[in-house]
Amino acid sequence: MRKVYVIGIGAGDPDHITVQAVQAMNRVDVFFVIDKGHLKEDLAGLRAELLSRHVDHGRYRVVEAADPERDRSADAYRDAVVDWQDRRAEIYERMIAEELDDDQSGAFLVWGDPSLYDGTLRLLDRIAVRSAVPFEVESIPGISSVQALAAAHRLILNRIGRPVLITTGRRLAAGMPTDIDDVVVMLDGGAAFAELPDTDVDIYWGAYVGSHDEVLVSGNLQEVKQEIVRVRAEQRERKGWIMDTYLLRRRPEER
Amino acid sequence: MRKVYVIGIGAGDPDHITVQAVQAMNRVDVFFVIDKGHLKEDLAGLRAELLSRHVDHGRYRVVEAADPERDRSADAYRDAVVDWQDRRAEIYERMIAEELDDDQSGAFLVWGDPSLYDGTLRLLDRIAVRSAVPFEVESIPGISSVQALAAAHRLILNRIGRPVLITTGRRLAAGMPTDIDDVVVMLDGGAAFAELPDTDVDIYWGAYVGSHDEVLVSGNLQEVKQEIVRVRAEQRERKGWIMDTYLLRRRPEER
Ligand SMILES: C[S@@+](CC[C@H](N)C(=O)[O-])C[C@H]1O[C@@H](n2cnc3c(N)ncnc32)[C@H](O)[C@@H]1O
Ligand SMILES: C[S@@+](CC[C@H](N)C(=O)[O-])C[C@H]1O[C@@H](n2cnc3c(N)ncnc32)[C@H](O)[C@@H]1O
Repeated sequence: MRKVYVIGIGAGDPDHITVQAVQAMNRVDVFFVIDKGHLKEDLAGLRAELLSRHVDHGRYRVVEAADPERDRSADAYRDAVVDWQDRRAEIYERMIAEELDDDQSGAFLVWGDPSLYDGTLRLLDRIAVRSAVPFEVESIPGISSVQALAAAHRLILNRIGRPVLITTGRRLAAGMPTDIDDVVVMLDGGAAFAELPDTDVDIYWGAYVGSHDEVLVSGNLQEVKQEIVRVRAEQRERKGWIMDTYLLRRRPEER
Repeated sequence: MRKVYVIGIGAGDPDHITVQAVQAMNRVDVFFVIDKGHLKEDLAGLRAELLSRHVDHGRYRVVEAADPERDRSADAYRDAVVDWQDRRAEIYERMIAEELDDDQSGAFLVWGDPSLYDGTLRLLDRIAVRSAVPFEVESIPGISSVQALAAAHRLILNRIGRPVLITTGRRLAAGMPTDIDDVVVMLDGGAAFAELPDTDVDIYWGAYVGSHDEVLVSGNLQEVKQEIVRVRAEQRERKGWIMDTYLLRRRPEER
């Protein structure tokens, strides 16, 4: 039976890779690569470095496919994502059927951890139920950008016995939750934090965390938000894209 | 200046260790070990395996200290934790001051990731401000039990564009949040899931995830909760302690 690994490779630092991931990579015959537009360069660089550093056998192949266009301007965000994933599923299905022999293993190397805001496992699930060629899926955890951010700021994400919410910039636009004091925000295309009125919140922000381009800013949200907006714009200008994450932490009430 | 690493070593599988953690471990002179009661054996086993497999230089030392007693029966959970952390801080402070020379590095190897329900960084922060001996702290991310659980069940924790909450068994006792459909529960000493009345929730449960003792159960919460309660009791009986985590996922409404 064909086997497909979904391998988390960490959030930008090649040394985030785990021993488990290295072992899995060494069992892979074909690495599937989806060209992710602006991320292409950095992802490709990271992938190439990992393969050359850690994969011993010389018999693997790398198969590339272009990512389908995604309608980012769509009002119906969820529908646009779902439609785009349909087209993506077709590409994945074809690659697995055509590029792998019966007893071979393929792999998708995914940014960060496969369990956080990554659609690869969902796509494979969808294909598995309809695909003419059966295959088995194995997920290998990786260091996510959330953990890289926490490490860079030496943070514990939760307070003692308290919860932590992981959410998106889009959701944060509705405001800081009233009942949760520690909120990690990912996928913030705008700068949703800058619109928050809260005066009792600290922010721990990081872009390209773990990579050579890492930038960190932290402090009282109202005091540092303009600096973050500025640094964000500068960095996006410089690299052409930005990848940032942050923790919003409500300060305990003064007593 | 003294340096103290807080190194995440993964949630039970020695192969969760990252290249970054291995590199840090190879710079460490003294590994500090806190005897964590029932966890002692498994933690000690994992630590010993990691040191012998990955640390090349033979000049490191391992220094052990007993964990202070913790009043787990206390009504005031938070106060008990804080008091216990004070006593723990004293132990850490003494170890850093007495066991490390000026230019040496120490390390705490922590279970999972240092940023999730682990108090080591908090303790070091507290010591740093009052300690007579200055030291620098570096946090190295590790695969957390949340990611190990997700990988074992091949889960993506969030649904598209939706948030995920990480919380404790104690908090869950108040009920499934109404506005969040994906909830990861840690530190559930009882079996808070079994008390939930919700009929529209699936559970993905795992104990000792990533280790040889891994047990997984998943399904409709109401249908499988008794099985999980039974397996939990059996396993706890067998090993003397249990470490389990689960995702609660509200099913989309039928249309
Ligand atoms: C599609 S999600 C993928 C997340 C990934 N699976 C993970 O575990 O980190 C992309 C988002 O992750 C965050 N992100 C990924 N890598 C990052 C990095 N190196 N620094 C800061 N944020 C990052 C950003 O919020 C970005 O919008
Ligand atoms: C004090 S917290 C430490 C969490 C750790 N820092 C991490 O990142 O996983 C201990 C809790 O983590 C969870 N846990 C840790 N290791 C686990 C494992 N191997 N399998 C299942 N749950 C685990 C359990 O919920 C347990 O109560």
